[in-house]
Amino acid sequence: MNYRIVGKYMGYILFVEGLFMIPALLVAMGYHEPDTIAAFIPVILVCLALGGILARTRSRGSIGMGEGFVICSLGWIVMSLFGALPFFLSRRIPRFIDCWFETVSGFTTTGSSILTNVEGLTYGLFYWRSFTHWIGGMGVLVFLLAVVPLAKGNGEPFNLMRAESPGPAVGKLTPRISVTARITYAIYFGLTVLEFVLLMAGGMPWFDSLVNSFATAGTGGFAIWNNSIGHYPSQYLQMTIAVFMALFGVNFSVYYMLLMKQFKDAFANEEFRAYWAIMIGATVIIGINIMPMYPGDIGQGFRDSFFTVSSIMTTTGFGTADFDKWPDFSRYLLLIIMCIGASAGSTGGGMKVSRLLLMFKHLRSQMRQMLHPRKISPVRMDGRIVEDTVMFGTTAYMAAYAMICVISMLIVSLDGKGLVTTISAVIATFNNIGPGLDIVGTTGNFSSFSDISKFVMSIDMLFGRLEIFPILFLLSPSVWRRRALKK
Amino acid sequence: MNYRIVGKYMGYILFVEGLFMIPALLVAMGYHEPDTIAAFIPVILVCLALGGILARTRSRGSIGMGEGFVICSLGWIVMSLFGALPFFLSRRIPRFIDCWFETVSGFTTTGSSILTNVEGLTYGLFYWRSFTHWIGGMGVLVFLLAVVPLAKGNGEPFNLMRAESPGPAVGKLTPRISVTARITYAIYFGLTVLEFVLLMAGGMPWFDSLVNSFATAGTGGFAIWNNSIGHYPSQYLQMTIAVFMALFGVNFSVYYMLLMKQFKDAFANEEFRAYWAIMIGATVIIGINIMPMYPGDIGQGFRDSFFTVSSIMTTTGFGTADFDKWPDFSRYLLLIIMCIGASAGSTGGGMKVSRLLLMFKHLRSQMRQMLHPRKISPVRMDGRIVEDTVMFGTTAYMAAYAMICVISMLIVSLDGKGLVTTISAVIATFNNIGPGLDIVGTTGNFSSFSDISKFVMSIDMLFGRLEIFPILFLLSPSVWRRRALKK
Repeated sequence: MNYRIVGKYMGYILFVEGLFMIPALLVAMGYHEPDTIAAFIPVILVCLALGGILARTRSRGSIGMGEGFVICSLGWIVMSLFGALPFFLSRRIPRFIDCWFETVSGFTTTGSSILTNVEGLTYGLFYWRSFTHWIGGMGVLVFLLAVVPLAKGNGEPFNLMRAESPGPAVGKLTPRISVTARITYAIYFGLTVLEFVLLMAGGMPWFDSLVNSFATAGTGGFAIWNNSIGHYPSQYLQMTIAVFMALFGVNFSVYYMLLMKQFKDAFANEEFRAYWAIMIGATVIIGINIMPMYPGDIGQGFRDSFFTVSSIMTTTGFGTADFDKWPDFSRYLLLIIMCIGASAGSTGGGMKVSRLLLMFKHLRSQMRQMLHPRKISPVRMDGRIVEDTVMFGTTAYMAAYAMICVISMLIVSLDGKGLVTTISAVIATFNNIGPGLDIVGTTGNFSSFSDISKFVMSIDMLFGRLEIFPILFLLSPSVWRRRALKK
Repeated sequence: MNYRIVGKYMGYILFVEGLFMIPALLVAMGYHEPDTIAAFIPVILVCLALGGILARTRSRGSIGMGEGFVICSLGWIVMSLFGALPFFLSRRIPRFIDCWFETVSGFTTTGSSILTNVEGLTYGLFYWRSFTHWIGGMGVLVFLLAVVPLAKGNGEPFNLMRAESPGPAVGKLTPRISVTARITYAIYFGLTVLEFVLLMAGGMPWFDSLVNSFATAGTGGFAIWNNSIGHYPSQYLQMTIAVFMALFGVNFSVYYMLLMKQFKDAFANEEFRAYWAIMIGATVIIGINIMPMYPGDIGQGFRDSFFTVSSIMTTTGFGTADFDKWPDFSRYLLLIIMCIGASAGSTGGGMKVSRLLLMFKHLRSQMRQMLHPRKISPVRMDGRIVEDTVMFGTTAYMAAYAMICVISMLIVSLDGKGLVTTISAVIATFNNIGPGLDIVGTTGNFSSFSDISKFVMSIDMLFGRLEIFPILFLLSPSVWRRRALKK
């Protein structure tokens, strides 16, 4: 392990975090919130100072897979610890474990909250809480790659991007990582601004438009009102958010193809097609299933169905209707969609549609193989043969996914909150959704869990956002043991 | 598809089923049960006649993988349809879908029941119901391979054994399949007799000893009393059954090694060790978790814990305590153990411990691979390298397992019985356990589900017992399409 390079990147991350907090401080100043101002100032100063010092670490050598994973996982943990401080110092969230849970939930774009009364926060903290979604959605390392000329001396930090980006394989839009990162962030920024403008145009206050755009873009789901998006009765506003949630769940390389006018490739993308097929299919099925609950207004039923499916599948977690009151069938279908999640290379979480496709194709190819053992049946995706290594990586991911899920549920079940709450709480945090069912349903929150459960679910959120392996490596002695070999 | 050979095997299966019903008829005669006698006689005659005719089909060619799968899945369906007739004709179970559910539950050694009052059956039907467990446990095709000199003209029917035997790979104890089948059944018979004798020695009535031995041996779990094994308050009887359940969940090749005095190999077997480790670990953990429910009698708590863990992990489903009243943690742990199941090559169901081990090793090897992309990290099991094909077969199995589980739950959720009932009912049938939680808990039953759900869960039981692929192939046009190529 190259400790110097790890330290250097921790510095970059802290410094950037300090910069990111400044707008939140300005908001707090604008709204005259003394306790929030007093909380932000020391944190910003520490982040800038400590980050600045660490970032000057001289380091040589390139970033290996091990360094990539450690920088990523450790970076996210450090970022969450410092990001939690403003909540704690302002005393708006009294216990640090809750501050940490809320901040991890923000950065990982989960949106699960321990707040029993959301509306009790200040504007400054609202801004920061929602902005964590925005930066977490596309990733802080990808941001660093986009803005800082890091490459010097440490080679092309492809392993950093690989560690932070979701999906079975990283799509490099261009040969150069920094250019790929810049294009990605440009698309991300552009779509966010577009949503902000459209919400403003629909009459939403500017502050609401801003934080809701952050939360939509990162597919996070933190709202600033107790009844989430249900606070805005306007159909136009609700549907705009629903559509943008769906858009942010698309693989950003599709947008790049569209920008490059490769329309055919974009629309032939298998994950893109499957993503919309699942979303539209689920919307229709749930719409029909809940029809009896909307007598005389079928349209509203389908709108609520679309909003909820879009919110759940992209793992945003915004709510307009209380889907926990829907029939078992719809609730169960939503649980499945929670696990499937959005597309690879999007800001959404979950297993990702492409992994589902790969597993499905794998199953079909294996069945063919069983019948014709002498014929080779390769798995193809978008016309190209999927290599065995990608396939094995995917199956290993699925195995890890199942194991972490099962073990987390087991620990959380110690709280004795009922199996539906336990199972759905873990699924909702692990897949970075936000709300679950029963106690943690759209009208509930995570405040009543024990500290152990809150800690486990925080780690689950990190597992989910960073796609398991970076965190798993952090816990694995073999990564640290390598140091002995290198010396 | 070689239809003649499929037809011939359907004949064998029916003929053998007819023979197997004769003891049940004799029991009914001994207990003077006219309606049961009247129900069995026509079914036996039809099975023997139809089976005898079909079995005489002349066929050439060997049994390919496709034929093996079709004979297996179709054979089990035919066997269940005819096996359901005595229940139906005797009018003890009025609706045919219920008779079919109960019979499939018997043959697949699930033990889920639609009977609201078990004790309302006759002795003849009790005998038949429990005997289906015994024959289903080790498999009717394996039985055929053991007793009938089939090999002539159709080659060594290895694919038949492969289709019916549980586990990621079939362990041939000896080079010849018929000898392997005979040894397996001899061990099976011997252990069953031993249990019968020990139960008799403990004062259990002979009929109870017999049917309980059948149900234990097949890891089925049909009891003849409403309170299952709780009917026998004797600690000796309960613990004897608990130990035998655990013994029948062991890979039979371990017993063969012991018989061959290969003690070192037997005890070094990784699955064998993991199986006991999980069983003992879960017993202790649950024992501690339920301790507060057994004030003053900790021993009873641990005995109930061991009985339940043994019953659930081997997928038997016998009950002494109502584990649905245990804390969430224990109930959830039992749900996990349900999915893990017993060993490959045993009579138990579930995913199998060896698959869990393989997935775990796969994950570890992939993580190693990620850190050192240039080094090959093969997966080893019992000292031998696991080939990529076995590994891929296992991952495909896991993918299919998850998909079937998810889709079945979705259909069953239409009944609106609550998510815990829905999820646990599917897990309990798919893994061939028997009871689940809530409505289908130890004191409940499956009678209140809709016909569609009962049908889906029947298919799930077959999926579980035959390990998915035979049934999946039966539904896949590609198996049938091959016929065109062959002609």
